[in-house]
Amino acid sequence: MALRHYTLDFNLSAPADCPSTVRGLQSIFQEQEMTETVHDTEGHGYLATFIGKNGRLVILRVHSQGLVTVDLQCCEGDNIAQVDNLLNALEKKLKSILHGNIRGVKRLPALTRGAAVDRYWPTADGRLVEYDIDRVVYDEDSAYQNIKILHSQQFGNILILNGDVNLAESDLPYTQAIMGRGKENYTGKEVLILGGGDGGILAEAVKLKPKMITMVEIDQMVIDGCRTHMRKACGSVLDNLKGDCYQVLVEDCVPVLKKYVEEGKTFDYVINDLTAVPISTAPEEDSTWEFLQLILDLSIKVLRPTGKYFTQGNCANLTEALALYEEQLGRLSCPVDFSKEVVCVPSYMELWVFYTVWKK
Amino acid sequence: MALRHYTLDFNLSAPADCPSTVRGLQSIFQEQEMTETVHDTEGHGYLATFIGKNGRLVILRVHSQGLVTVDLQCCEGDNIAQVDNLLNALEKKLKSILHGNIRGVKRLPALTRGAAVDRYWPTADGRLVEYDIDRVVYDEDSAYQNIKILHSQQFGNILILNGDVNLAESDLPYTQAIMGRGKENYTGKEVLILGGGDGGILAEAVKLKPKMITMVEIDQMVIDGCRTHMRKACGSVLDNLKGDCYQVLVEDCVPVLKKYVEEGKTFDYVINDLTAVPISTAPEEDSTWEFLQLILDLSIKVLRPTGKYFTQGNCANLTEALALYEEQLGRLSCPVDFSKEVVCVPSYMELWVFYTVWKK
Repeated sequence: MALRHYTLDFNLSAPADCPSTVRGLQSIFQEQEMTETVHDTEGHGYLATFIGKNGRLVILRVHSQGLVTVDLQCCEGDNIAQVDNLLNALEKKLKSILHGNIRGVKRLPALTRGAAVDRYWPTADGRLVEYDIDRVVYDEDSAYQNIKILHSQQFGNILILNGDVNLAESDLPYTQAIMGRGKENYTGKEVLILGGGDGGILAEAVKLKPKMITMVEIDQMVIDGCRTHMRKACGSVLDNLKGDCYQVLVEDCVPVLKKYVEEGKTFDYVINDLTAVPISTAPEEDSTWEFLQLILDLSIKVLRPTGKYFTQGNCANLTEALALYEEQLGRLSCPVDFSKEVVCVPSYMELWVFYTVWKK
Repeated sequence: MALRHYTLDFNLSAPADCPSTVRGLQSIFQEQEMTETVHDTEGHGYLATFIGKNGRLVILRVHSQGLVTVDLQCCEGDNIAQVDNLLNALEKKLKSILHGNIRGVKRLPALTRGAAVDRYWPTADGRLVEYDIDRVVYDEDSAYQNIKILHSQQFGNILILNGDVNLAESDLPYTQAIMGRGKENYTGKEVLILGGGDGGILAEAVKLKPKMITMVEIDQMVIDGCRTHMRKACGSVLDNLKGDCYQVLVEDCVPVLKKYVEEGKTFDYVINDLTAVPISTAPEEDSTWEFLQLILDLSIKVLRPTGKYFTQGNCANLTEALALYEEQLGRLSCPVDFSKEVVCVPSYMELWVFYTVWKK
């Protein structure tokens, strides 16, 4: 079952007169045959709850410092028109009661709670955003992570790993940004992709006539899910783990990188598309940063002197985390320079920073 | 004053055992010295409210069909760490009580209600999105509309007219899309902009060496607000209402268009950047559609045979409204063809459709 949760808030210029506000609304609740309970708030304004048919619940609070809030919860199957009418009646009545004292009225789109299809996927900087998701396409736990592929009307299918939006079928700008779109000539080059199990980078890179692409993705289930459900991103490139100019190794990239370092194998481009998102700003408490450092160090070691290392950084708003990452770039065993770019990835609902790193 | 509203929801595989769920949580509420009220829900599950110090309010519902919801409201000035701890304790306890019966747990970023800086600006398709808005830069009512300019950390200043996000300083893709970016040669051309008071289109168009741009914007206050606060979009172009190759008429565009039709004045490009958003899908009840039709008809009349008419349509998800608009294009006094393009405008949080229209 799911619940619809409506909010209606009145911001006032001066404290409201509690008794008259409450009295003014009572007829509406009586008409709805709702049972009222008035609570003792120990001096923190007025609070009443109203329970109606079908499990409808209204919470009315008149805060002493000039805020009136109404919450209305109803079951998803409840009559939406009736519920809207009730809210309209409350809004209209409150507007007339509080007339002359209103600084602002806010009625948000209803929150849907407990639904089988979850539409809320907060941004990396912690904001609440509702997606136009209407269908669960795939939802499995692999040995490494929870893998969801959800359908959005506008973005196509969206890959969500452990609750983080990774890539939607609309997100070519992500793929282009993490490859150095248009700035780099891939013809005849050797390319290493770390992660990238959705196949987006691989699909774009094979079009550019490289000599060889090696992709190292740990999670076969990501590959399988995306091969079937993210075809606007990966095309047919994941149908085989080997092609004319590419191979996909289903392995942990750390031992693979270490082996390449030992063998002296190098690449023109290393693209780090791993999921580890360095959102922690407390490196000492979080091994994420150590992992990032390890990957960076190994990647730079397998990079040719003229090569480029590409990676996504973080959302533009997490400036502290970005600064810490840039500090880390200054502490590599091999000195590097870097540039960054802020990109709008359609399904992200926030601007994202991408890095290009090269040896000094 | 403002309120922080937290939600914590447990989706269950089977109905929960009410008494044991509730008993399990009671020690937490007692520790917080919260006063419990148990409500009669007339058979619609269990409902209790808990009132604590500083006006804290918790609402616990155990729905009979397998959903447990917790709401926690507290004042903005309340101790956030304490409130987080309370929520953590409730989440941990519920996880242990409901162990083996949990399908999903959802804890959304807290809603801020009644704040002086409003961060919630729903999309055109009615979804709830929270912006990273931290400051009100400008908030005035003109003779025509409410004009807000709000500061976003990532998007720069955002112009919001009557509650609709119009343009942010990050939104060059909007301006480029509504001008036929890169596809059209503006050199030596005569251009008419309808609306466009933020100056974004004008600023880009003057760079392209047109013969003459006429912009007709009804609202001087929009121009004034944007000249001061949207300079990343308009540059210095609004500092004067007349330049080498442009003039800004602060007038209603309908009589101006009618006058041009009478005089036989024509343009190479007509760019409709008016705010009227045709989100209604019931044309017969809404004069918005008549207004759109009027503007379209007049615009096509002042368009040279080889000219182009550009406009923004609607969000990609409002397919019915888009279809109605396209029907309208088929009913003009002069037969036209059109193309459309879906564009990601950074601050919109939804894909947007842009139209190019030309005479057959």
